[in-house]
Amino acid sequence: MLTRIESLSNKYIKKLVSLKDKKGRLEHNAFIVEGERVAAQIPEDWPVESYLFSESREETSFEAYERRAPVYILSERAAARVSGLVTPPGVMAVCRMPLAAPALAFKSEPPLVLICDRISDPGNLGTLVRAADAAAGSVLMTRGCADMYSPKVLRAMSGSIFNVPIIAELTADEVISLCAKNNTPIAAAHPQGRVMPWDARLSAGCAIAIGSEAHGLSEGIARAAASFIKIPMPGRAESLNAAMAGSVLLYEAVRQRAPFKRAYDNRGSVPRL
Amino acid sequence: MLTRIESLSNKYIKKLVSLKDKKGRLEHNAFIVEGERVAAQIPEDWPVESYLFSESREETSFEAYERRAPVYILSERAAARVSGLVTPPGVMAVCRMPLAAPALAFKSEPPLVLICDRISDPGNLGTLVRAADAAAGSVLMTRGCADMYSPKVLRAMSGSIFNVPIIAELTADEVISLCAKNNTPIAAAHPQGRVMPWDARLSAGCAIAIGSEAHGLSEGIARAAASFIKIPMPGRAESLNAAMAGSVLLYEAVRQRAPFKRAYDNRGSVPRL
Repeated sequence: MLTRIESLSNKYIKKLVSLKDKKGRLEHNAFIVEGERVAAQIPEDWPVESYLFSESREETSFEAYERRAPVYILSERAAARVSGLVTPPGVMAVCRMPLAAPALAFKSEPPLVLICDRISDPGNLGTLVRAADAAAGSVLMTRGCADMYSPKVLRAMSGSIFNVPIIAELTADEVISLCAKNNTPIAAAHPQGRVMPWDARLSAGCAIAIGSEAHGLSEGIARAAASFIKIPMPGRAESLNAAMAGSVLLYEAVRQRAPFKRAYDNRGSVPRL
Repeated sequence: MLTRIESLSNKYIKKLVSLKDKKGRLEHNAFIVEGERVAAQIPEDWPVESYLFSESREETSFEAYERRAPVYILSERAAARVSGLVTPPGVMAVCRMPLAAPALAFKSEPPLVLICDRISDPGNLGTLVRAADAAAGSVLMTRGCADMYSPKVLRAMSGSIFNVPIIAELTADEVISLCAKNNTPIAAAHPQGRVMPWDARLSAGCAIAIGSEAHGLSEGIARAAASFIKIPMPGRAESLNAAMAGSVLLYEAVRQRAPFKRAYDNRGSVPRL
């Protein structure tokens, strides 16, 4: 099915615009991903409500898309209204929000969980999910994190929302009991930490907790942590931002777990430096 | 000296507003840092042209500031015009641009240099400098990087501009010859890399090269690299953003160089995880 929409007062356009806010996303149980690359990453079993193309993309063959969900061609004005970007992309997809079962976050063997504790900066939150995706980890988000379906977070995630098991809107207590139930100790990044990352046992199942730059870790999660990790900073900067700290500790976990399963082409891998 | 400025047509306000653009910054050889925390980080030997306070900060004691440079009290409207932030901070400082001698970047023993190659995203560039600061490294920037004195880059740097030796506006050839002259091999982060970070010799002097997300490394720098490093990604994300990649490789260099000089409090540092 292919429908053309010109008018900004069209009912479906109004619904799409409402998805820019958390309230509208929750009401309609849907969110929008923008850009061809990200739209192409939507897994086959992920429910898509519709695809949106801007007029400029009319030459595209829509067949493959139409087989999956209704396709709408939006006037440039309508596309600009729906998009969260300054330059709206040619392709957007309206996706349903999945319900991830909490157990999913602890499924991998051993679990590698990233706890995002009140990460309110959208760029940092999205980047952390992207880092968890790279590390084959999962993510627990506490209340107080940015909304994971907001355009800015989705942009920083760069498609990782489709790859990473994410459980959001948790209280600190829920995070703690989930980790306890799944025998996964919490290793918290903490400025007062005394354990160097390489001395922390991240090769076993673990949940790496990152607090917000402004407020740090929730008291409960800090208390429940099995260890406080200090990211070494021999220079003068007093801290890293949340996304950098998370990236570094996830990398350290991957390093400790190497060789990991994904096959790399190792021909000629002799270090040349 | 304490001067009060109300009018937006005041000549000094006009100069300050011109510092929002690269052209104005170069013309006046000055840039503005915003916020009390960053202003407090300006080293004693760094030339400050003036301090700017908004009216709301009139209760502040300006004596310490006045000893160093002229102090201006700006009306809220004037402060809002000068600031690059939505909510202008109470304190700004107009700083001179220093001329860093290229040799400074290779001064540490052994050198740890971060090459930012055409990093055009201001947030990524600033974050990379902050990561270099944390790692006690220096930074070489090629032409094509965002302007390091722009408000967005300065914000992401969070004061690190005052700590890190930065040589900017270099051509790829200049980067290569600087590294060669200082016997510092280039280790480039590269999607086609085959050397794992922990197999690269980052404990010896090295220059870690990070290219832009959009364009990758300059051809010349890629050709000059002694090794291509692959950041391991056992998950599904295809890449990390430039800031994350840089943070991870700088951390790996710090790890390989540990124990480093800065003293940590090691009492009770037995890993508890």
